[in-house]
Order: sequence, then C-alpha cells, then structure tokens
Amino acid sequence: MDFLTDGKLVISGAAGMIGSNMAQTALMMRLSSNVCLYDPIAAPLEGVAEEMYHCGFDDAQITFTSDIKTALQGAQYIVSSGGAARGPGMTREDLLKGNAEIAAQFGKDIRTFCPNVKHVVVIFNPADITGLITLLYSGLRPSQVTTLAALDSTRLQSELGKYFKIMRNKITNCRTYGGHGEQMAVFASTASVNGRPLTDLIGTPELPDAEWKKIQEKVIQGGKNIINLRGRSSFQSPSYLSLEMLRAVMGGEPFRWPVGAYVDDRRFSNIMMATETELTPDGVALREVKGTAEEQKDLELSYGHLCALRDEVIKMGIIPEPSQWRTLNPNL
Amino acid sequence: MDFLTDGKLVISGAAGMIGSNMAQTALMMRLSSNVCLYDPIAAPLEGVAEEMYHCGFDDAQITFTSDIKTALQGAQYIVSSGGAARGPGMTREDLLKGNAEIAAQFGKDIRTFCPNVKHVVVIFNPADITGLITLLYSGLRPSQVTTLAALDSTRLQSELGKYFKIMRNKITNCRTYGGHGEQMAVFASTASVNGRPLTDLIGTPELPDAEWKKIQEKVIQGGKNIINLRGRSSFQSPSYLSLEMLRAVMGGEPFRWPVGAYVDDRRFSNIMMATETELTPDGVALREVKGTAEEQKDLELSYGHLCALRDEVIKMGIIPEPSQWRTLNPNL
Repeated sequence: MDFLTDGKLVISGAAGMIGSNMAQTALMMRLSSNVCLYDPIAAPLEGVAEEMYHCGFDDAQITFTSDIKTALQGAQYIVSSGGAARGPGMTREDLLKGNAEIAAQFGKDIRTFCPNVKHVVVIFNPADITGLITLLYSGLRPSQVTTLAALDSTRLQSELGKYFKIMRNKITNCRTYGGHGEQMAVFASTASVNGRPLTDLIGTPELPDAEWKKIQEKVIQGGKNIINLRGRSSFQSPSYLSLEMLRAVMGGEPFRWPVGAYVDDRRFSNIMMATETELTPDGVALREVKGTAEEQKDLELSYGHLCALRDEVIKMGIIPEPSQWRTLNPNL
Repeated sequence: MDFLTDGKLVISGAAGMIGSNMAQTALMMRLSSNVCLYDPIAAPLEGVAEEMYHCGFDDAQITFTSDIKTALQGAQYIVSSGGAARGPGMTREDLLKGNAEIAAQFGKDIRTFCPNVKHVVVIFNPADITGLITLLYSGLRPSQVTTLAALDSTRLQSELGKYFKIMRNKITNCRTYGGHGEQMAVFASTASVNGRPLTDLIGTPELPDAEWKKIQEKVIQGGKNIINLRGRSSFQSPSYLSLEMLRAVMGGEPFRWPVGAYVDDRRFSNIMMATETELTPDGVALREVKGTAEEQKDLELSYGHLCALRDEVIKMGIIPEPSQWRTLNPNL
C-alpha cells in the first residue's frame, strides 16, 4: 500500500502520549513517507523515534528534532498536540494563557519557516482558541487551519450505542457543534438510530427525556470520565481522529465528523468552532449546520461562551481585537 | 476494507500500555470485527474501551470484561501482554516466578474455557519462558502458540540503517535468534545492506569489527535504551509487531521477522525460542536457521542460556521435568 503523500508531515509534541500515538497512527495509516517528529523534550522524543524504527516501518523516512526550524522547514502538513498540561496549582486561566502563548509562537513559526504548508491541525486545549490563535499568527488561509472537534460527536454515538444496545455503526450522523465541554451544543435532530430519527425517539418510552438528558451529560463529561477511569487524559482517540482529518486533507477517505474551523459570517463571526465542514485537498470548506430552532439557540449560546473565552485571550494581550485581525493576517 | 476475520480476538492485559495500544492497533489493522478486551483491573480497562468507541471504530464489536471466563469463551485468537511489571524491591527471580505463575494459570484457563482457540501469541516477559509454560498448560499444539521475538531483529535493522545512513528498507533480512537480551544470537550472514551481504562489509573500512561489535551491543541494549530515553518500557513496537504476527495467522500479510516458537529436534529440545518460521492460518511452521559455523555456535550458547532459565522454572515447581511434559500436553 502506497503512502498518501510524500509531502513532509510534522507531528509536533511527538514525545507526549498523544504525539507518540500520532507517530504510530500516521505510519499505520500510510499518510506520508516523510514523517518528522518534533518535541522540545529531546530524550523521550528520541525514544519515540526508536519505537517507530523497531516497529519495522522501514519504507518511511522518520526523522526527529527538537529544533523547530529544522522541523518546520519544508513541512506540507502539521498536526500539533504540543500544548502544556495543567500542572498542580495552575488555574484554568494559567493554562489558557500558557497554551495561548504557545499557539501564538507556533503560528509565528509557521509563518517564518513553512509559509507554504498545506494544512495544519491543532489539537491542544482549548483547541478552538489555540487553533484560532495559530490561524491569526500563521498568516494562513482559514481553509488551512482546523482543530479537532469530533470527539464529542463520537462520544454521542458511543453513548447512544450503549443505551440502545446496538452496534455503533447503526447510530449515524451524530453531531455536536460550537464549543467543547459544558459549552457544547449537542444536536439530536441530525442523528438516526437504526434508520429512525433520534428526535422521534426522545420523549417516548424508548428514550424518555430524562434518559436523553443523562446521555447528553455523559457526552459532556466524556473526557473527564476517561481521566477518572484511566488516571490519565484520553490520548488514543484524539490522536486517531486528528489523523483521520489529515487523511481526508491528503485525499484519502472522507472525514465523517464535525471539524473545528474558522467561522465568520452574518451569524457567527471571528471564531473557531466545531461546525459542519468538508475536508478535501483544498482544505476545509464550511457546510450548513442543520438543526431545530432550539438546537440553533443552543449553538448561539455555545458561540457566546467561545466569544467570552476568545475575549479573555484578547484581554491577556495575546491576540488583538478582531478589528485588527486583517492587519495580522490578510487572508482573513 | 473488510476485517480479516469475524472470529473473536481477545486482548489480554488490555488496560496496560501495551494492551491498550494493541486494542487500537488491532482495530486499525482491521484484524477482527469482534475484539474483546480483558484485564483484571476494571476501571482503566473500561477507559480503554471508551477510547476505542470515541475513535469511531463503529463497525467492530468491542467488548471488555475482567472475568477471564467471559473473555476466553469462544476466543479464536488471543494475544497476551498480561504479565506483571518489575516492582520496587523485586528481584529478577521474583519477576520470573510471578510471570511464570501467571502464564501457568493463563494456559490452564485456555484449556478450560477455549480449547478450540486457533492461535495464541504471548508477549509478557520473559516471553520465551511464559510462552513455553502457556503451551504446556493449554494443551494446544506447538503450532498454535508463539511469542514475540522480532524486536531484536528490527533493532538490528534500525541500528544498521543509522550506521550506514540509508533507508531501513535497504537493510534486509536482519535476524537474531535464540533468547533475548544479553543471550541473543545476532546473525550477520542473513542480512544485506543495499543488496550487499553484511558479512562482506564487516571487518572492512565500511564496517570495522569494532563498529559491528558496537552495533550488536546497541541491539542487545535496545530495550534498555528506550527505558532510559522515555522513562518507560517500550510499548508501541511490541504491540505493533505482535499484531503483525496475528495478522499473518489470520491469513493477512506474511510476517517478515523471526518468531518465538517451540523447538524440539535433534539439536535443540524442549524449548521455545526465536527461530526462523512461517506464520500461516495453519499456525507456525519451523524453517531452517541458516548461518555461519560461528553463528550456529552463538545460537547453541543462547539455547543453553534459555535452558538454564527454563530449569529455574522447573526448580520453582511451576512446570515439571521435560520427561513429564507429554503427560501434561499430549500434543507435544
């Protein structure tokens, strides 16, 4: 099986749990014959590269470096899990500020070292915000920067599968949009269970309202649940899904889930959020979000939460006011 | 892409680093549409299953259980990384005894709950010994039980690739046989570098003897090097390669590396060790180990080391003397 591309794929944060899984996943998916692993932490990074050599992935060029210039030069695709984790004593704001600054530098580095990159997927938290900051500073087109936003939708599929005790592939077109966590908008009207619209089941004995509320809550708490169960943040699913996104951008199988993308229309402006999209070799293209009036209201609420988070970062001085964005990135 | 089989694949030790990687790898390789994750530690196991659901692997039945009977019933393929890790204050002998006892129980459980299993791959350390014990107690045929023994060969390929600064797929047919670690027999005469026999290069300016010695040492220390670099044992490469073994047994791509298999001929008897084999849906078949007189002597030395390790386990009372083995397992 051939590689999808010979273009250089850079995995940033490759020494971490997500990043090291991405290295293996990218090679197993046969995404690129040229994979560069980057991480500032040199020794574990080398350990990950060694593991990849020991797998016998012998027809791919697998390099590793802790020098960002070496990593990014010639990059055609980048996926970055390279944020900081929340340390002891750190507030949510500390984490936000830290990762926002990392994203700003990451964007600047892209502009300096690989302005001709084709696509960048950003997955470190809060991804809607770090993705937006990366887009602003990189100078790339909005179609070239996406964030991982699929996990909430796959969690909805998973919880519905458990509730109805049927195979997950009988639960189709699950969608959550907007932000992540408490702020997400969980849509019901897009999904079907065994061919029947989910909205026909909610509020009936098959899925009483209270049970549907519980499912929504489980979706929202899906990440926290993994931490409780495993004693560590999820790393396999974010790794896997973000590379499925890149696979679609490289011309492989279409991506089936919502994507975090830059939205700037009459309804939502100057924001990156989970939305309906199509990922192709031309990048991400926005598609209409369909839903009931109530769902659309939820989405607007979620958008409001994201704007507040974005405005925090503006107040921190990490990005300017939206009115200044086009000066920073003329492609917006 | 279809699954290779609908037969039940059991991943034992699925809550661990290797096991959880195996879950994802098996699903990505499309090995089986029926994957059962087993681990005595229930909460992290559930966390791994959740991660697999959140990946969107939605056309496979993915179950999890901490009940060994539920796990093994109906199993057609098993891969087990379910050994204990070396804890603080534990001697090498403690670890050997602990994992030997786990292997004995594992073999008995197979005999009780899934005597019709097709193939079992054992990868917890020391795998040559735990695999042998599993074979003895399971009552399976020698063709049905194999152990992971490829890592040393892929490490040889990797080190030669680094030394000669060429792509690893230009380094072909790397082989180490016999035991693992200090006891392995690193063969040179099987390998080629860019089409030239490695033995033609050793002892020349292209690869002076001292450099070849260094390479052999790096191969032997390959696992320890990962621990030094990453602060944890290798888990991605053992996971990946053991599932490549199962893929071959399921009728997929042939396996390219040595395999740990039961050997009992005129030269080597009553032992499991890395040897030349072919993995097919009929299981593992032994093939001739070719090498120079000196390499064959190294292999005999390595065999001697393994026999000593096996005899330790006999003295511990975990397995009987070889003369009694046929009573325990008439298929030997």
